[in-house]
Amino acid sequence: MSGQAVQDKQVFEASWNEFAKEILADLDHYDHVPAETVEYFRCLLEHSCVGGKMNRGLAVVSAARSLVGRDLTAKEIHQSCVLGWCIELLQAFFLVADDYMDASITRRGLPCWYRMPGVGVAAVNDSIILESHIYFLLKKHLRDHAHYIDIVEIFHQVAYMTELGQHFDLTTTPPGATSIDWSRYTLDRYRRIVKYKTAYYSFVLPVQVAMLQVGKANAENLATTERILCLMGEYFQIQDDYLDAYADPEVLGKIGTDIQDAKCSWLVVTALGMATDAQKQILFENYGKHDDKCIDIVKALYRELDLETIYKKYEEDVYGVLCADIKAVHDLPHDIFFFLLHKIYKRQK
Amino acid sequence: MSGQAVQDKQVFEASWNEFAKEILADLDHYDHVPAETVEYFRCLLEHSCVGGKMNRGLAVVSAARSLVGRDLTAKEIHQSCVLGWCIELLQAFFLVADDYMDASITRRGLPCWYRMPGVGVAAVNDSIILESHIYFLLKKHLRDHAHYIDIVEIFHQVAYMTELGQHFDLTTTPPGATSIDWSRYTLDRYRRIVKYKTAYYSFVLPVQVAMLQVGKANAENLATTERILCLMGEYFQIQDDYLDAYADPEVLGKIGTDIQDAKCSWLVVTALGMATDAQKQILFENYGKHDDKCIDIVKALYRELDLETIYKKYEEDVYGVLCADIKAVHDLPHDIFFFLLHKIYKRQK
Ligand SMILES: [Mg+2]
Ligand SMILES: [Mg+2]
Ligand SMILES: [Mg+2]
Ligand SMILES: [Mg+2]
Ligand SMILES: [Mg+2]
Ligand SMILES: [Mg+2]
Repeated sequence: MSGQAVQDKQVFEASWNEFAKEILADLDHYDHVPAETVEYFRCLLEHSCVGGKMNRGLAVVSAARSLVGRDLTAKEIHQSCVLGWCIELLQAFFLVADDYMDASITRRGLPCWYRMPGVGVAAVNDSIILESHIYFLLKKHLRDHAHYIDIVEIFHQVAYMTELGQHFDLTTTPPGATSIDWSRYTLDRYRRIVKYKTAYYSFVLPVQVAMLQVGKANAENLATTERILCLMGEYFQIQDDYLDAYADPEVLGKIGTDIQDAKCSWLVVTALGMATDAQKQILFENYGKHDDKCIDIVKALYRELDLETIYKKYEEDVYGVLCADIKAVHDLPHDIFFFLLHKIYKRQK
Repeated sequence: MSGQAVQDKQVFEASWNEFAKEILADLDHYDHVPAETVEYFRCLLEHSCVGGKMNRGLAVVSAARSLVGRDLTAKEIHQSCVLGWCIELLQAFFLVADDYMDASITRRGLPCWYRMPGVGVAAVNDSIILESHIYFLLKKHLRDHAHYIDIVEIFHQVAYMTELGQHFDLTTTPPGATSIDWSRYTLDRYRRIVKYKTAYYSFVLPVQVAMLQVGKANAENLATTERILCLMGEYFQIQDDYLDAYADPEVLGKIGTDIQDAKCSWLVVTALGMATDAQKQILFENYGKHDDKCIDIVKALYRELDLETIYKKYEEDVYGVLCADIKAVHDLPHDIFFFLLHKIYKRQK
């Protein structure tokens, strides 16, 4: 990491304390909120917002600096931190709800929020509380910003697109379903899920809010960033799916479970697209089973189909396309794209 | 109902078709949304927004008319309908999530949304999709309104207060808990739950958005409406709790289940406040049990404590206080309060 990146990370991480404190202090404005509620909210915020890589939030600071083309003023850094943490809150909102819906076990090395003592199904309400904190922070810190309403609207819009992505995902792999509807595991469907569920909030949003923050957004450059960053988001998710089966768990920091969880992963979708009928039969019989033997059979099939080579070729191809697309942009600094692209290109974790 | 009220109801109800169509048509703007998604959203909107009394939505139309002191123009009626349906969407958002969290069985005579075929835990995502539709409609129809941002903010604020109320409720009566923490069944706690969970979105919000719509809101009259309508909302919920045990199920349209569901109801809280130790013991042993004998024992204790008389005295008292409070208001038409008060005073269902 560059010195600037290290410093940004420190400043961004430190700013969380201020925002968490404000969210908790605001509870004093309501009637006799008991101390246990303040403590519950403190735990919720700490557990669900802290401990991630903060790439989405940090991307706002980095993009804002690239866009203005000079060091950010203290006020600008602060605004970028507000916006960055609002994206981290948006992610926390979705992850708390998603982990509940998926009955996931751990997140960032800790039990998922709904599995914490005294939480359970209340996690559903807690997730929307996290969402409300976004708009509390935006109002508190950006109400006088010339583009305040555009910023609020982009959060609404991206939240809706992410919910749409979740809907596509939930209807492809329904939680608790006892059988897989293989007709839904197509590349078209995969790309639609990924674009809406991941790309908008993870890639498009950080850059576009930075553009709004520094007053450099217009219809044309918003369309450009959307196009490039949706492709980058798709690449990120395909990579995530690849690493789930192919990365060293020691390096990745977790053990992949996409195969036994019957995930609509790029690997299985790609395998299905090239498999013989006999190979398809192997997938149908072994995918989505919580049995080490079945998992090994699926992995062996992936090797037989040489998905590793296919993935590596995809990665080089999409990297080439993205670099060319970025270099063709004439009205935005290329760093706002390369900052994100170089965080993911050939990553191991 | 007056002729005006009948006409408002017809106009308001009919306007839903336009808004539902717009929400579904908007799906065309995303990549290749399949027809089954449009159909799923159509069912979600129909099932969760239609079939209620629409009192909250209708209150916006009525309040707007009282506030301008003349017939509303076609444009004004349309704006009131948008805002009214946004409140109905807010309610749908909360009810879909609440019914899931409470594992409720029916709502408005139909199975709760999460119990519909193919829904299940996806109801969590569906509830936040309904929330997103609020901001879609506000943007589509009110973006040029002078108070657009204030309207968006009041929806954010009231949503947050409702989530806070849900949190108070969930921590008082945790879903799935095997025992009741009786120390939490106090009148103070009850009032806090009710104020946040019900009063703001059901009573304060319809009147305050109408005030913003017609440009008659200021800090002073917003504070007045908040004070009076929070009290009215508390009265509404106390009455709801009373009817749950005392109304004729034929007239009420449903069979009350607060006793077996261990609800923190005004009846049980009031009973606890006046019961002898022996009577408390009867409550501890029989409340929250899905057993007709236990329910009858609790109801017999309510009769022994004469909660009917206590409720009727409360109703007369609070009605008197509300009428006096309303008549003391000098800067707002009293009808905006009486419209709501006369819908609930001595209601049987
Ligand atoms: Mg998940
Ligand atoms: Mg999921
Ligand atoms: Mg993954
Ligand atoms: Mg409920
Ligand atoms: Mg509830
Ligand atoms: Mg009730």
